[in-house]
Amino acid sequence: MTLETLSTSKAHGGVQGVYAHASAATGTEMTFSVFVPDHPAGTRLPVVWYLSGLTCTQANVTEKGAFRAACAQHGLIFVAPDTSPRGDGVPDDREGAYDFGLGAGFYLDATRAPFDRHYRMKSYIEDELPGLIGATFPADMSRQSIMGHSMGGHGALTISLRNPGRFRATSAFAPIVAPSQVPWGQKAFAGYLGDDPVAWADHDACALIGAGARLPEILVDQGTADGFLEDQLRPQLLEQACAAAGIDLTLRMQPGYDHSYFFISSFMAEHLAWHADRLKT
Amino acid sequence: MTLETLSTSKAHGGVQGVYAHASAATGTEMTFSVFVPDHPAGTRLPVVWYLSGLTCTQANVTEKGAFRAACAQHGLIFVAPDTSPRGDGVPDDREGAYDFGLGAGFYLDATRAPFDRHYRMKSYIEDELPGLIGATFPADMSRQSIMGHSMGGHGALTISLRNPGRFRATSAFAPIVAPSQVPWGQKAFAGYLGDDPVAWADHDACALIGAGARLPEILVDQGTADGFLEDQLRPQLLEQACAAAGIDLTLRMQPGYDHSYFFISSFMAEHLAWHADRLKT
Repeated sequence: MTLETLSTSKAHGGVQGVYAHASAATGTEMTFSVFVPDHPAGTRLPVVWYLSGLTCTQANVTEKGAFRAACAQHGLIFVAPDTSPRGDGVPDDREGAYDFGLGAGFYLDATRAPFDRHYRMKSYIEDELPGLIGATFPADMSRQSIMGHSMGGHGALTISLRNPGRFRATSAFAPIVAPSQVPWGQKAFAGYLGDDPVAWADHDACALIGAGARLPEILVDQGTADGFLEDQLRPQLLEQACAAAGIDLTLRMQPGYDHSYFFISSFMAEHLAWHADRLKT
Repeated sequence: MTLETLSTSKAHGGVQGVYAHASAATGTEMTFSVFVPDHPAGTRLPVVWYLSGLTCTQANVTEKGAFRAACAQHGLIFVAPDTSPRGDGVPDDREGAYDFGLGAGFYLDATRAPFDRHYRMKSYIEDELPGLIGATFPADMSRQSIMGHSMGGHGALTISLRNPGRFRATSAFAPIVAPSQVPWGQKAFAGYLGDDPVAWADHDACALIGAGARLPEILVDQGTADGFLEDQLRPQLLEQACAAAGIDLTLRMQPGYDHSYFFISSFMAEHLAWHADRLKT
């Protein structure tokens, strides 16, 4: 597995890099970014995964996420993958819509043609990329945590719920929490997984909790001026699921904030401090 | 003078806005961004001007500059103008080069046709926009400071040197300090001002200092891995000019940093803390 370095820049005393590799999971070249803070030679640092939302690549959070100061302060590696396979031969939404296909992989393994060949973001994020990160960067893979935004918040919640014990902290900014019940998720799941909702439950945070999946605690920030709040995000569904399951959810409704990186960057440092507390040796 | 609000987002407790207006100075529509931190009703806050570098609009620093946390902490308004006039009828570099014309206004008033009609960034930044900011935002215009990057560092230094007493602090990231002596400046000045270097001196920080202009102190950060360091930036020329003039220059050569926003954002909070110290009532 050969890693190509697309760029590196010194930042906040560490190195912000962008890398590409031929992914076995997706059968495409995949790009991701990693920030490694300054650290004593030979030491290994905990890893925070950040999964991005619809339309994004690894670049959005890398440029706008304002995570490096906090990662440098707490000694955290920050990994930001892409949101879908890309390249020649990767099918897109029939009408080029933003909420399916390129930039909208939904962190699942598609089972429906023609998407089943390359849209394998679950295998990529859960299995392949962690191996590459652990082998290539000074990462302590026994100390991982995960966060994400919107579609990436859905990814962070579902991946953490399906892999109990792997992540010491799970948080999200404005996540999709019950994709089976909202238009974004219904369109994506029907397209990638087919029309039978039974196949959807493994990719729905609220459904996973309803079926017995557990996390000790979850932190969610949600802006009240987010245009997607009522139709697509519906954090109350997560609140109800966590209450019924006894999961310690901290849901902070942030007055006046929208769905943008202006919102994410405002609370990124608090999320990373919360993760850092749980990632200490 | 009517201001059009293009967007506003809540961020770090304040409001990040992007605005447009018909500029009398440039004869074009001009766009700029302003961050106003949360503040008690009726109070006015000091203003930090940030001038961007070649190829940039107001958007680059607004998205990548990592200034909002520090501005919220210190109570600073942050103003980021565009780098040139734009729109139908605004002439560009003959070959579309990045270092002249659109995105490369060099913060001067052109005297040479066809650029003299719209390229009036000196009048825009020194005279017109401050009036608009003071009239529209809760700004205390008796407490201003200025900073910039690369071409915008040149702008910050020359505007501050030409307007003694207006800015309580002046700093720069990787500034052009002696444009008359480097290719970027020579091309721009010849194109905008003509071939006679006598007309250039008023737009050259080192020449201005040599002619008697003074500032109490200047802060400059410069990355040692900056690809433009030797040919275009040459901070040693500013060091020599300040030493000869008795100006208190703090020039910090930052090992391993390049010319990008990864560099700028790494030191932005320190610059803003330094400005805030000098902007206190």
